Amino acid sequence: MRIIAVGGAGTIGTAVVKRLSARHDVIVAGRTSGDVRVDIASRDSVARMYDEVGEFDAVVSTAGEAHFGALGTASEDELAVGVHSKLLGQLRLVLLGRSRISRGGAFTLISGYLFDDPIPDAVSFAVANGGVEGFVRSAALSMDRGVRINAVSPGLAEDSAAEFGALNPGRAPVPMSRIAAAFERSVEGWRTGEVIRAW
Amino acid sequence: MRIIAVGGAGTIGTAVVKRLSARHDVIVAGRTSGDVRVDIASRDSVARMYDEVGEFDAVVSTAGEAHFGALGTASEDELAVGVHSKLLGQLRLVLLGRSRISRGGAFTLISGYLFDDPIPDAVSFAVANGGVEGFVRSAALSMDRGVRINAVSPGLAEDSAAEFGALNPGRAPVPMSRIAAAFERSVEGWRTGEVIRAW
Repeated sequence: MRIIAVGGAGTIGTAVVKRLSARHDVIVAGRTSGDVRVDIASRDSVARMYDEVGEFDAVVSTAGEAHFGALGTASEDELAVGVHSKLLGQLRLVLLGRSRISRGGAFTLISGYLFDDPIPDAVSFAVANGGVEGFVRSAALSMDRGVRINAVSPGLAEDSAAEFGALNPGRAPVPMSRIAAAFERSVEGWRTGEVIRAW
Repeated sequence: MRIIAVGGAGTIGTAVVKRLSARHDVIVAGRTSGDVRVDIASRDSVARMYDEVGEFDAVVSTAGEAHFGALGTASEDELAVGVHSKLLGQLRLVLLGRSRISRGGAFTLISGYLFDDPIPDAVSFAVANGGVEGFVRSAALSMDRGVRINAVSPGLAEDSAAEFGALNPGRAPVPMSRIAAAFERSVEGWRTGEVIRAW
């Protein structure tokens, strides 16, 4: 399969690309690095990415930002970063890509455990993740040509544990291979409208 | 208690106001009717509402719009209506009200079953509802002075069943009193960060 990995240079993206590259042709798309450049916050940039790539069978997204910081000091605009980047940015990947993806193709977006098991400083993430999960569940009902759409909700990634582990008391880090496998299952599997928890 | 009911003139709002009015002082806030006027899409309008109302012990919101229509023909901007109105509008009610609400007060926002059990034309609702659920779960961790925050996720409301029932095959309408009771439980109860499903 020819797979576009948006955000493929990030912590989770790197693990996903590594796993999928073993048996697939993976095109890494990133804001500042990768085979093609894309800023998911921009409609034009996403459309241009699809133009550059041409035919493809799957999109795996590990892209999108959200605000990290205390609710008491965050502005409304800061809290909305997750909505504009991680939520609407990923939604844009699907809206602009759904007519271009191959028959039977698959979109896999990224959500995250902070929706189910929030921590105080990650409100922006929880909001974005909830939106992403609602999107894949509902959008799956309207995909045509056998196209599927799922989200992977990774737990605390092992490769992020040094940085964020202390903020997540009692949360066991998840091996990168397990997170990558969840993306693989979405890409190559059968189900759609699913939130695959990699915890 | 002195309770602000935002969207209190809507289908669900009317039932909530009726129930809470039996034992509380309820101020109905709405865009085109009510005791005070508010447009939750506007920061200034929400701030002005709180200025007008003065002291209050709870906010119950049944407000916010989302787009209804097929994914294939909806524009990105249409799909984002739910994000800008139902999600960020309700988030705004909390951000601007959390320092003004009485000690031990409660915010109750509205989500909806379309997150858990979507239908094809309600993608915008599913996205907004997921964001609202992520917000209350995470924001609850940072409320101070004993302030609580929950969401009620109503099922298909009985008073909407004539209009929307056919779009929800096999979904039993929920009596308005049951939905109103869920709001009452959030306002007068003990729990916080909860999504109360009224199905």
